[in-house]
Parts: sequence; C-alpha cells; structure tokens
Amino acid sequence: MALKTLSAMNAAALDKDLMSIGAFSIDQLMELAGLSVSQAVYRVHPPKSGRRILVACGPGNNGGDGLVAARHLWHYGYKPTIYYPKQGKNDLYERLATQLKNLSIPFIEDFHSALKETDHVVDAIFGFSFSGEVREPFPAVITGLEKASVPVTSVDAPSSWNIESGPPSEGPGAEFVPEVLVSLTAPKPLVKWYTGRHFIGGRFVSPDLKEKYDLKLPEYEGIDQVVEVDGEGKVKSNI
Amino acid sequence: MALKTLSAMNAAALDKDLMSIGAFSIDQLMELAGLSVSQAVYRVHPPKSGRRILVACGPGNNGGDGLVAARHLWHYGYKPTIYYPKQGKNDLYERLATQLKNLSIPFIEDFHSALKETDHVVDAIFGFSFSGEVREPFPAVITGLEKASVPVTSVDAPSSWNIESGPPSEGPGAEFVPEVLVSLTAPKPLVKWYTGRHFIGGRFVSPDLKEKYDLKLPEYEGIDQVVEVDGEGKVKSNI
Repeated sequence: MALKTLSAMNAAALDKDLMSIGAFSIDQLMELAGLSVSQAVYRVHPPKSGRRILVACGPGNNGGDGLVAARHLWHYGYKPTIYYPKQGKNDLYERLATQLKNLSIPFIEDFHSALKETDHVVDAIFGFSFSGEVREPFPAVITGLEKASVPVTSVDAPSSWNIESGPPSEGPGAEFVPEVLVSLTAPKPLVKWYTGRHFIGGRFVSPDLKEKYDLKLPEYEGIDQVVEVDGEGKVKSNI
Repeated sequence: MALKTLSAMNAAALDKDLMSIGAFSIDQLMELAGLSVSQAVYRVHPPKSGRRILVACGPGNNGGDGLVAARHLWHYGYKPTIYYPKQGKNDLYERLATQLKNLSIPFIEDFHSALKETDHVVDAIFGFSFSGEVREPFPAVITGLEKASVPVTSVDAPSSWNIESGPPSEGPGAEFVPEVLVSLTAPKPLVKWYTGRHFIGGRFVSPDLKEKYDLKLPEYEGIDQVVEVDGEGKVKSNI
C-alpha cells in the first residue's frame, strides 16, 4: 500500500478550508506548522549534533513556516542564521522576522558563505504552491542545497520539485534529495520520488476535513507535533 | 532563594510588550500558551489516567488559553467538555470555539453535573488580570472546583485568588488549591501561597524582555513547552 497523497490543488483547497470552515487564522496554522518542523529537526539532528542551522526562506508561506521554525529552534538551543532574500511584504512575515531579530538571530545575504559555516540547513523556500520555474536568486541556492555536505530538512517539498511529478528532469534540483522532509498536513504526490526520512506535521486537521479530502493520516504519538512514516505510510515510532 | 515573580501590573505590561516590541499576535501567544497548558496536563495526567477532561473557561484571555488547550488535548486522545458560560465576543474567541465545535467537542451549561462525570478539570476562568470580586455565575463554579474530587489544573492563577495576595480570606476559593498550576510567561506573586505541582509555560520570551522585567526563568528542556519547578524555582526534571 502506497502512502496516500494530497494533490497541489487539493492542498490549496484544504488550506482555504482550514481558514474558513476550520476558523483557524494563518498565524495559528503557521505557528503549528513551524513548530512541527522544529520538532522534526530536533528529533533527527539534536543540538549536540551541531547547533548552527541555516534557514533558507522563500517569499511565501513556506518561508513563513521556516521563520517560525527558526524561532523555536533558537529556544531549543540552536544558533539559527536566516537567508531571506525576497522578504514577503505582508504584516505577518514582517512580524515573524522581527521576532527573530529580537533574539539577535542574524539575517545574512551570502547564502554560499553561510552554507560553509553551518551544521544543518532548513529548506523553506518553496511549498505546495510552487510550480513552473525557479526564479532568481533561488537557482544557485537550490544548487547549493543539492551539493551541500550538511544535512538538509525540507519543509513540505524539496524546493524546485514539482508537487505532482517530483524532481525536475534537469537543472537545479534534479539531483536534490534532502535528508529529511516534513510534509505539512498531508504528503503531496512528490513523496513517491522521495527516499529520505519522512515526517508528517500539522496536528490540527479535523475528522470532517480528513473525510472531505480522503486523507489517511498516521496517528501522532503523545504530545508530538510530528510523526515519522515509512514509504507505505506506516508510523515509525520515536524510540 | 524564593521563586522570582512578576506583579500583575508588570504581567500586563509584559503582555503588551510581547505584542508591540515583540511583534507577536495574540493568536500566536494564545496558541503557545494553550499548548503549554496541554503539555502540563499530559505530563501529570496522561490519557491512561482518564480521558474525560472538563475545561472551564472565563470570558477573557485565560478562557482563550483554555480553549486552545482543549483542542490540543483532543488531538492527544482526551475527551474534552467545555464550560464557557460568558463567551467573549471577539473574533478570536469565536474562532477558537468553532475550532472545538468542528471536533464535536461538547459545550455544556450545567457545570456541576459535568464535574461529576469527568476525570480531570482545567480551570481557565481568571488569569493575571483578575482582581476584585468573582461575578456570577462563577462563585458556585469556584466552590465546585474547591470541593472537586478530581484533580484541577489552573491556568496562570487558581481562579478567585488575588494575583498579589493569594487566596481570598473567605468565601469561594478560600480553600481552593489546584493540584497543578501552569504559570504563563512567569510566576505571579500568588505562587507564595501555592503548594501543588508548579509548571512554567510560554516559551517565547526574548532575552531583552527577560532583562527588562528582571525575570529569572528556569531553562526549558529539549522541545518542551513547559518546565516544572519547585518552590525555590529550581527545575524538576521530566524523567
């Protein structure tokens, strides 16, 4: 049995439902999504494996999830650095960035230098709404992630991958396989091409929405905000 | 060395700072506060000790924290019931209540009957902005909590206690000592009179604000959103 997935179109519709029928604010959902990412990072790469973590953020909600994750990681004892070349202009992204600046977390401009001085990377560049081509300055960033000698955790999708059809056949990202993927709410079709450690995060979906989108989500354990699954969607226990 | 505390006036000022200088939205802070409460409940009373949990919510932010906690508790496998007799009219409280209704969590009107059919109670009636007298319908609710045969977890303050001077000398709450107290952000002066298990929650305070309010907060462990302390403010490890 393969893992059940949510198409890009349905992922967008579910997101909309969470904020209308579901009555969640984007602040709440992003807080819980970023918290999930931070817990997956902690589980796979605890601070004793290296405290320096470079968080690459894109201009949209995926980048916002990365900003939230960075804040939680700081509180866990990591030393985050943020690469955020196309800062989203909306009020929420600006506030999330200010929250990090208040922790004296540096925002850097030279991704490639920063990549040489980190122990882990979080890829929060593109999420489920990505399609088409990777715009500047991100092609070189994707190539950097692809060749990185440190582990990468991707948020919702390995950036540059097509949500439905997986890695691009050529160019930046064609060989990119992050060590860890955190699928938010539910896995997207691209997971068929993904071979690393796979977590599901976003513990806020109601039974009604699960039914509406025909989701078969694994059971979270205890108070965990993430759950690790194998290629068939079976839970890998946190022991 | 006694536990360092934050006066009611400074707690209000810190809350304001978190939302201005700190750039947090109330949605974010309430989400993290309620999450902290849910984690303390899980640590002390895991679902195997009884899944039924009655959450009593007041009209203000303390009640909002209770609504968030109830949602997380549902996701952990508890069966929450909500008593929310004076529902706050603002948009956030209404959305938090809808999020619970979407999980088919019942809202009940008869607190005393519900108290006979639960395994635990969360007291989210009054928080740090409480002062003066307990208004209807809460006096009888406080008396119910005081005499409850099941454990009570209070959010930020045992409801009816004066934030500075502790339990009232007579009337409802004079004998009320919840089994668990979760102080949000920092303990308030009332903890001097409190003898049960004590947690601190709200892992979002920046070093600048800690310094401004001269807070001596205990170190959280791992990814925990709560930390248990003894009467002197020393961490009691989660082992």
